[in-house]
Amino acid sequence: MAAPSVLEAMSRPLLGHLDPAFVGMMEEIKEMLREVFQTKNRMTFPVSGTGSAGMEFCFVNLIEPGDEVVVGINGVFGGRMAEVAARCGAKVTRVEAEWGRIIEPAQIAVALEGRKPKLVAVIHAETSTGALTPIPEISRLAHEAGALMLVDTVTSLGGCPVELDAWGIDAVYSGTQKCLSAPPGLAPVSLSDRALEVATHRTHKVQSWYLDVNLLASYWGAERVYHHTAPVSMNYALHEALRLVLEEGLEARFARHERNHQLLKDGLASLGLEIASQPGHQLWQLNSVTVPEGVDEAAVRAKLLQNFGIEIGAGLGPLKGKVWRIGLMGESSTPDNVEIVLNALGQTLSEAAG
Amino acid sequence: MAAPSVLEAMSRPLLGHLDPAFVGMMEEIKEMLREVFQTKNRMTFPVSGTGSAGMEFCFVNLIEPGDEVVVGINGVFGGRMAEVAARCGAKVTRVEAEWGRIIEPAQIAVALEGRKPKLVAVIHAETSTGALTPIPEISRLAHEAGALMLVDTVTSLGGCPVELDAWGIDAVYSGTQKCLSAPPGLAPVSLSDRALEVATHRTHKVQSWYLDVNLLASYWGAERVYHHTAPVSMNYALHEALRLVLEEGLEARFARHERNHQLLKDGLASLGLEIASQPGHQLWQLNSVTVPEGVDEAAVRAKLLQNFGIEIGAGLGPLKGKVWRIGLMGESSTPDNVEIVLNALGQTLSEAAG
Repeated sequence: MAAPSVLEAMSRPLLGHLDPAFVGMMEEIKEMLREVFQTKNRMTFPVSGTGSAGMEFCFVNLIEPGDEVVVGINGVFGGRMAEVAARCGAKVTRVEAEWGRIIEPAQIAVALEGRKPKLVAVIHAETSTGALTPIPEISRLAHEAGALMLVDTVTSLGGCPVELDAWGIDAVYSGTQKCLSAPPGLAPVSLSDRALEVATHRTHKVQSWYLDVNLLASYWGAERVYHHTAPVSMNYALHEALRLVLEEGLEARFARHERNHQLLKDGLASLGLEIASQPGHQLWQLNSVTVPEGVDEAAVRAKLLQNFGIEIGAGLGPLKGKVWRIGLMGESSTPDNVEIVLNALGQTLSEAAG
Repeated sequence: MAAPSVLEAMSRPLLGHLDPAFVGMMEEIKEMLREVFQTKNRMTFPVSGTGSAGMEFCFVNLIEPGDEVVVGINGVFGGRMAEVAARCGAKVTRVEAEWGRIIEPAQIAVALEGRKPKLVAVIHAETSTGALTPIPEISRLAHEAGALMLVDTVTSLGGCPVELDAWGIDAVYSGTQKCLSAPPGLAPVSLSDRALEVATHRTHKVQSWYLDVNLLASYWGAERVYHHTAPVSMNYALHEALRLVLEEGLEARFARHERNHQLLKDGLASLGLEIASQPGHQLWQLNSVTVPEGVDEAAVRAKLLQNFGIEIGAGLGPLKGKVWRIGLMGESSTPDNVEIVLNALGQTLSEAAG
């Protein structure tokens, strides 16, 4: 769900994408994104595509054919990073964990032994499993090995702490439709000066013209060199969504996500249900719930949508049929929503059992 | 400008991108795009990025390293196609025409002599110069040489005839923010079965995961396999914009664009101004106007924006400082707008002269 003022922003009359009024808004978006990412990185802006385009942006700019990359894979999105890296010509070392568990720093340490990869990449909040991998220690190990640290924050940004500079993250991407509560369609990204140095001193041209940071820097920078036509309305929405995030305050917003996760977890327990992801590393904004034995999980999801207008996610990959995924992200993370989903789920399950 | 109902559509509450209601809308968008492109191509859908992402979609899917490509270059966007093709590893043969003139079939014929390129690519409506290159003869030559025909219809689609099947176009991309009058952010594309055959029988994987038609086909096709999160609100807007285009009717819409172009041209003549692009091949929706000797063209543009709220384009590349570009696209192509811009331009020029 997006806030009413965010949806309203989408319907504002269009400005030319080089109009001074729109350019002023671009500057404010960059500044607000820096606050939300907790970074001073100059190169912080929204890529004109969805979160997956943000992932591709990071890899195409940082990787050249033959580069070594270590990728943590504990769900759908880690697997996708490995695939995108390979399509950039990277030699990928896969560090795998069971779906629902985190990538442990010790696993990364083992993968780095005797290697000097260009990049270490992990998913912060795995949307497909509900696990939150801690970044600081992995980032330290990556830097010790001389590698850049890349992190996917699609589901974490705006819902739990993401501290680019404090954690030493060199490249990051996110999406607008998770905890920022704007419609999908843009991918906030940020590159450290070190990452930018790599991207601007390449041997080969970036394989994607659309995502080449060397060209985008001039469009989103002071020069305003025409590159593509930015999705104007989407930027209106992101601007308003970021304003709301900062108005609430990051700490207050994170605390709200944590509280509502705890409420849900307690309510699930009283229904005899439990969170499926690794204890101590469970996401607040995406709650993976173990499907009880003998329950037709697809039927439950269909009933929730038909009878209550509630959409919850299915399990993916090895978790298919084994978990439901309940989002409590941004605007949608409210005690009311927790109560509504618990009631609906309780009713549906008792009918199924009845 | 977008129609009020299109802007309104943007602010509708969000649906999950795999929600049955949204999936139904996706089907209608595909069907309406086929009508507007005048094609039966199954593979017709909006790429989740702007027009430039549509360009990249066509090249990354059809080109493999070492493939030969013939590109017509008579403005900014032809040059961009050559650059994108090269980044896919293509060997590019450039067929150049003076900016403001069309690519002549005879030029393409010369370039094809003794060659068997994989692809011939031209810009239908060059937004940077106002020239409209006729496609059918070039397409015939391309097919005779065994090549696929790729056409950029970013500015032409919805403003003047674009007939994919009748003209034998194999790959095409467009944008939403020109004559379709939706906000920027999506790129309608279409591939013929022949082009799709090439894209699905490649030796190398498509270098872009985000734009890989082999993956997108399952997302936009009957399987609905999750790929990325489609920009839901942008699709609402495109759906409503396409509905309006078809409600008006393609023939009526083209006739309206032609009429208003003629009105503008007559009015410009009475101000002593003329269209800069090649006679007989002047775009209706983008009018390139020769800047009179001694006039500070940037000052005129700034005054139009400040005093009248009218944004007209500057000349690009070799036309920088030599032309203005007046858009009369989709919703904006009205007799009122023609009168307003003529009055504003007349007043501004006479003040500058005074």
